[in-house]
Amino acid sequence: VSTTRLEAFSDAVIAVAITLLVLDIRVPPTPPGTTLASALGHQWPHYVAYATSFVTIGIIWINHHAMIGRLRVANHAILVLNLLLLLSIALLPFATSLMAAYVNQSAGQHLAAVIYAGSFLFMAILFSALNAYTLVVRPQMLDVDLSANQRRRVLTRSIIGVGPYLLATVLAVVSAYVTLGLCAGLAAYYAFPTASGGGQPKPAG
Amino acid sequence: VSTTRLEAFSDAVIAVAITLLVLDIRVPPTPPGTTLASALGHQWPHYVAYATSFVTIGIIWINHHAMIGRLRVANHAILVLNLLLLLSIALLPFATSLMAAYVNQSAGQHLAAVIYAGSFLFMAILFSALNAYTLVVRPQMLDVDLSANQRRRVLTRSIIGVGPYLLATVLAVVSAYVTLGLCAGLAAYYAFPTASGGGQPKPAG
Amino acid sequence: VSTTRLEAFSDAVIAVAITLLVLDIRVPPTPPGTTLASALGHQWPHYVAYATSFVTIGIIWINHHAMIGRLRVANHAILVLNLLLLLSIALLPFATSLMAAYVNQSAGQHLAAVIYAGSFLFMAILFSALNAYTLVVRPQMLDVDLSANQRRRVLTRSIIGVGPYLLATVLAVVSAYVTLGLCAGLAAYYAFPTASGGGQPKPAG
Amino acid sequence: VSTTRLEAFSDAVIAVAITLLVLDIRVPPTPPGTTLASALGHQWPHYVAYATSFVTIGIIWINHHAMIGRLRVANHAILVLNLLLLLSIALLPFATSLMAAYVNQSAGQHLAAVIYAGSFLFMAILFSALNAYTLVVRPQMLDVDLSANQRRRVLTRSIIGVGPYLLATVLAVVSAYVTLGLCAGLAAYYAFPTASGGGQPKPAG
Repeated sequence: VSTTRLEAFSDAVIAVAITLLVLDIRVPPTPPGTTLASALGHQWPHYVAYATSFVTIGIIWINHHAMIGRLRVANHAILVLNLLLLLSIALLPFATSLMAAYVNQSAGQHLAAVIYAGSFLFMAILFSALNAYTLVVRPQMLDVDLSANQRRRVLTRSIIGVGPYLLATVLAVVSAYVTLGLCAGLAAYYAFPTASGGGQPKPAG
Repeated sequence: VSTTRLEAFSDAVIAVAITLLVLDIRVPPTPPGTTLASALGHQWPHYVAYATSFVTIGIIWINHHAMIGRLRVANHAILVLNLLLLLSIALLPFATSLMAAYVNQSAGQHLAAVIYAGSFLFMAILFSALNAYTLVVRPQMLDVDLSANQRRRVLTRSIIGVGPYLLATVLAVVSAYVTLGLCAGLAAYYAFPTASGGGQPKPAG
Repeated sequence: VSTTRLEAFSDAVIAVAITLLVLDIRVPPTPPGTTLASALGHQWPHYVAYATSFVTIGIIWINHHAMIGRLRVANHAILVLNLLLLLSIALLPFATSLMAAYVNQSAGQHLAAVIYAGSFLFMAILFSALNAYTLVVRPQMLDVDLSANQRRRVLTRSIIGVGPYLLATVLAVVSAYVTLGLCAGLAAYYAFPTASGGGQPKPAG
Repeated sequence: VSTTRLEAFSDAVIAVAITLLVLDIRVPPTPPGTTLASALGHQWPHYVAYATSFVTIGIIWINHHAMIGRLRVANHAILVLNLLLLLSIALLPFATSLMAAYVNQSAGQHLAAVIYAGSFLFMAILFSALNAYTLVVRPQMLDVDLSANQRRRVLTRSIIGVGPYLLATVLAVVSAYVTLGLCAGLAAYYAFPTASGGGQPKPAG
C-alpha cells in the first residue's frame, strides 16, 4: 500500500481536529451588570488550552510528516496504528474543552488535568509505537537507508518525548495549573526553532 | 474521469465524518453533589460508540483505498454509487450519537440499536454494490489485471462482510447492548493485524 | 496559477460542507408519553432535506471536477468566481436546516423554501458564470481543444441547468412541499446514470 | 522538507475554517407575533460578517498559494510560522461570531470590533512575517529566481496590506460599524479582479 493516501487522510483528520478546537471558544453572553471585557477575560483557560492544543497538534503533524516521509510502503499494521494515533488526536477537542471548563473549578480540576495531559501522553505513546514498528519491526518498509544507529537515535528521541507528558499527567494530582503550564511550555519549546536544532523537526512525542 | 480527485474528495469526506464524531462527547456539567468522575463515567456509552464508529470508519477507509486503487477510471455510475457510500458514512455521527444517547434508556434502545447497526449495514451494502459494479459490470475500468477467480474472491469477501452487520441489526431487537458489543467486536477484529491475513487489508463491508 | 491547489481547496470546502449537513439531524429528546420512533418520525423533513442537499452538492462536485479538468491555468478572476461558488455551497448547511425546520410550519414555510431553492439557484448561476468565463472570456486557458460548437454546447447545458432551480424558487410561493419535492427530484434525476447520458456527467447547474 | 504536504495541510485547515463560518448563521426561532422574515432580517450582521470573513479567508488562501508556490523547501521555522498563521485563520470563526453578536449591542460593540479587525491584523502580520522570513532570511529556499528588487516589491506589498487592518482595528474605538464596513470593503476590493492588476493575485495581508 502506498503512503500517499495515508498522508492525505492523516493530514485531513489532523486538519479537521485542529480547526474544530475553535468551537470551544464561545461568544459569551453579557447579562446586565457585566461587560464583554470581563466575560471574555473569564474565558482565559479556553484561550490557553486552545493555543496549547493547537500548537501541540501542529508539532505532531510536523513529526508525522517526517515519520511517514521515511516510509516507502504501509502494511495493515501501520494503517491501524496510524488510525489509533488519529483517534487520539481527534479526541483532543474534547480533552481541551474539559480542561478549559474545569481548570478553575475546585471539584474536578485534577481529573480534568489528568485527562488532558493523559490524552497527549496517549498520543505520544502511539506515535512512539508507530515509530518503533516502522524502525524496528519493519525496517525494510523504510524509503531511506538508515543505519541501525540512526534508527535507534530517531526512536530514542521519540520515546524521550513521552517523558514530559507522563510528568504532566502525574503532576495533575498536585495542581491542574502546573499541568496546563507544563503542556503550554512544551508546545512553546517544540515550536521554538532553536530548540529543535536549527530547522530539523524533532519528535514531540 | 480519473480517480485522483475521487480519492481526494472521498478521503476528505471520510476524514471530516470521522473527526466530527468527537462532537458527541460533551463536557458534562457537575451540579452540586456530583463529581466529575461520576459524570464522565455515566457517559460510557459515548466512549464505546465513539471508538467503535471511529475504527469502523477507519477500516472502511482502508478498504475504500484498496477498492479505488484497483480502478483505472471512474464513470458517472461509480461517482454516484461512491457518493451514496459517502452519504452513509457521513450519517454515522448522527447514528453514533443516537446509539450512545439511547442504549441505556428503557424506551427507544432497540430502535436506536437497529438504526446504529443498520447504518453500518447500509454502508456495507453500498460498499459491496460499488465493488460488484466495478468487478462485474465494468471490469474494463480496472487498473490491474484480475482473473475472474480473483475478482470473484474480492467480491465474495466483500459480500460476506455484510453478514455480521445484518446479524447486529437483527439482534438489536433482542438487546441493544449485544448490538453495540458486536459492532465493537467487529471493529476490533478487522483492526487486529492477524485477523486480516498479515498486512493484507480485508474488506469490512 | 496551476489548477491543482484550486482543485484541492475546492474539494476540501465541498467535502466539509457536505459532511456538516449531518449536524442538522439531531438526536431527539423523548419526554414521557412519546416514543423514539415518533420523535424520529417527526423529523422527516430533516432527512429529506439532508439527502437532497447531500446529493445535489455531490452532483455539483462532479460537475466542478469536469469544469476544472478542462482548465489549464487559473487567473485571479477564476479564483474569485470559484470562491463565490464555494461560498454558495458552504451556505447550504444553513439553508438546508432552515428548510427542514420551517417546511411544516404555517408561518415561514414559503420564505424558507424560497431561500432553500434560491440557494441552489445562486449556486447554479455562479457555476454557469464560471463556465461562461472560462469558455467564452478566457478560452485560451482551457487545457483541451474544444471547438466553438462544443464550448457552446457545454455552456448551454450549464445555463439550462439553472432553469429548474428558478422554477423551484418561484413555486415556493405556491407550496414549500412542491419546492422540496422538486429539489429532491432534481437530485435523483441528475444522480440517475441513464439520465446523464451513460457515464457522461452532466452539469446540474 | 518538501512543500507538498505543507500545502495540503494548510489547504485543509483553511478549508475547514472557511466552511465552519456557516455554523454562526442559525435558524432563528419565531415566537408568536414574529415572522421568519423579520427574524432573519435581525440577523443581518451575521450575513455581513460571514461574507466578509469568507472572502477574506479566501483571499488569504490565494495569497498563501502564491507564497508557498515560491518556496522550494520548508524548514522548521517556516513550518512553525505557517502553523501560527493557520492558528490565526482558525480563530476567525470565533472572531466573526463575536463581531456579529455584538455589533448591534451598545455594550461591547467596540471591543468586539477591535477583536474582529485585530484578528485580521494578526493574520496579516503573520503572513508578512512568513513572507519576510522566506524572502529575506532564507532566500536560498525559494524555488524561483527573484531579484533583490522583486523580493523587496513582494514584501513591501505584503507589509502595506497590514495597514488597512491596523486602521480598521483603530477605528473600532470610533464605531464598530465603520470597522465592519471597512473589513467588508477590503474583502470586496481584493476580490475585484481589476483591483489586483488583471489576474495577478495581490497579497491581502
